[in-house]
Amino acid sequence: MIAGPDIAALRARLSAAAAAAGRASVDALLVSPGPDLRYLTGYDAIALERLTCLVLPADGDPRVVVPRLERPAALASPVGALGLEVVAWDETDDPYALVASLLPGAGSVAVDDRMWAVKALALQGALPQARQSAAGVVLRELRMRKDAAEVEALRRAGEAIDRVHARVPEWLRPGRTEREVGRDIADAILAEGHATVDFVIVASGPNGASPHHELSDRVVQDGDVVVVDIGGAMPDGYCSDSTRTYAVGGVPAEFGWAYDALQAAQEAACAAARPGVTCAEVDAAARRVLEDAGLGDRFVHRTGHGIGLETHEEPYIVAGNDLPLEPGMAFSVEPGIYDEGVGGARIEDIVVCTDDGAERLNRRPRELVVIG
Amino acid sequence: MIAGPDIAALRARLSAAAAAAGRASVDALLVSPGPDLRYLTGYDAIALERLTCLVLPADGDPRVVVPRLERPAALASPVGALGLEVVAWDETDDPYALVASLLPGAGSVAVDDRMWAVKALALQGALPQARQSAAGVVLRELRMRKDAAEVEALRRAGEAIDRVHARVPEWLRPGRTEREVGRDIADAILAEGHATVDFVIVASGPNGASPHHELSDRVVQDGDVVVVDIGGAMPDGYCSDSTRTYAVGGVPAEFGWAYDALQAAQEAACAAARPGVTCAEVDAAARRVLEDAGLGDRFVHRTGHGIGLETHEEPYIVAGNDLPLEPGMAFSVEPGIYDEGVGGARIEDIVVCTDDGAERLNRRPRELVVIG
Repeated sequence: MIAGPDIAALRARLSAAAAAAGRASVDALLVSPGPDLRYLTGYDAIALERLTCLVLPADGDPRVVVPRLERPAALASPVGALGLEVVAWDETDDPYALVASLLPGAGSVAVDDRMWAVKALALQGALPQARQSAAGVVLRELRMRKDAAEVEALRRAGEAIDRVHARVPEWLRPGRTEREVGRDIADAILAEGHATVDFVIVASGPNGASPHHELSDRVVQDGDVVVVDIGGAMPDGYCSDSTRTYAVGGVPAEFGWAYDALQAAQEAACAAARPGVTCAEVDAAARRVLEDAGLGDRFVHRTGHGIGLETHEEPYIVAGNDLPLEPGMAFSVEPGIYDEGVGGARIEDIVVCTDDGAERLNRRPRELVVIG
Repeated sequence: MIAGPDIAALRARLSAAAAAAGRASVDALLVSPGPDLRYLTGYDAIALERLTCLVLPADGDPRVVVPRLERPAALASPVGALGLEVVAWDETDDPYALVASLLPGAGSVAVDDRMWAVKALALQGALPQARQSAAGVVLRELRMRKDAAEVEALRRAGEAIDRVHARVPEWLRPGRTEREVGRDIADAILAEGHATVDFVIVASGPNGASPHHELSDRVVQDGDVVVVDIGGAMPDGYCSDSTRTYAVGGVPAEFGWAYDALQAAQEAACAAARPGVTCAEVDAAARRVLEDAGLGDRFVHRTGHGIGLETHEEPYIVAGNDLPLEPGMAFSVEPGIYDEGVGGARIEDIVVCTDDGAERLNRRPRELVVIG
């Protein structure tokens, strides 16, 4: 069996979400398959074209609308144990009209952030009197504060990806392509306990200048600096995400000082993170170190993103985000430096905010890893 | 290198999409990462929270709005070779206002069907004067008519999944759990050439009554009928999807006649499919055979779905769909029968409509496969 939140925890989340909707003057949350549905009901449904939708009124009983052929799968999920009413529709029914019929008089509904636009637009058509907004504003308040079980799940994910990074020097050798190295890493992500591989970035030499480079047929060469940014989702849905930078055949002479500044920046942001400090202040802590080293214009992205049932979620560690950190918030700290045509470097740990500051969930050495 | 459409083909698709938008009185298509973006530009971007968006006006030059950190990845994709203008935004910019600034005076825009609702709603906010619709209505006209290269890609995907089905009897043995069998199948889906595993259904015994059952810890037993419905996406993005039903340790006595009717229904729907016949008529051809056998109420879903860069796309083979088939349309033919508490069976091939009728892209024997 796949570990998941217990029924009491799910019931509490549904109640908390309904209450949060009420406070936001939203009459109902409409939640299709994805991380919000999994968070609220434990139902890990695949997002397909047929509408599956949790209808969660601010006041009243939640219901789950499903295509009839998925009714058994829904009932076999925690939706069954939760005792939620399951309303099935047939292939030639209009599921949007069905949802609307469950919400007479609704003046405001919120759809999950990742609902497909074609479904959200169909719901607008079926509920023309209801103002539609994005449910993330309501649900992030719940999802970004991880409880103890969620922190434990993220810790297990962090340990799993650390075990993969520990083995990267076996595979990252001169003469192999990024794609070959990436395939070995992907296999190891699964072998170390993840259910899915979400991304594998092996950015060698000049490719390191592209923060979201994935895999190419470039052959790794002696003297390359290589950014390896990898992650997946565990069977319980919680995600890993960690970056280390490797130097194949020794550290290029002109590179060491910049890497030292990068490591100091990552350290500074982790040290800054504690309850009451804003996301923007954590971002600024990393940025200041790189600016002082004359590398400010090389750090072209925010310092981090929240993580949980999604690799990227609230809170975002970015300039302008005045949200104060609270215990239980989990996010990446991943400053990077990029030099077009030359290369790049990045160091990334997932951290969780505790009463005492940031606890790192990734523990591999942060120094440049010299291979060979 | 991953095979993909050539630049001339992509250019033709962009022109055809712009023209189709114009005919639909849509001023611009707004296309975020997903199958539509890959179809139109060859850019296989990961859908994340930062907005990447092709802005394709009915009249005027297309542009691609990207987060600055993904600019190199966008230019390394066919977007670069196409010579499309790439407009980068910084972490603290508002990308929705940026898109709106590229569309002065637009009165109607269409967003890709799978755009995240949070992005579509933000675009509604940034373009309050523009009516927003779903772009699928425009783009399906292009995407559901496969050209020769796309049919070839679907054929390769079909051959790959056929090779997996050929090996299922090695893994599907009494005493093993569905999850163990499913893990072997998933490994083989990748080993046979797919880039991703999209779904693995191993529904044994009574679990076969749930059409979208996935994997459980149920142990396969002698005498079980097992539905195995599997698919993935090839490196070029085109999908496979095929179902066969297996009987472990012999055919249950009371089951043979129902399976024969199912096989006749699948045959009848394939025989019915040819240019000019409607999707509804293909569905009816399968349904009639099962109704005549007294099994009509056991066939609880439509007969099939289109397939291409998505596992499920237009055209849907369902009652009420009066779309006439045309050469190049590719779709599944997959009648099934389900008996709650007892079990189920399904037979699924992908077929492509040709001038001469339906060509099957899956060629494994369709009889019940008896194991052991």
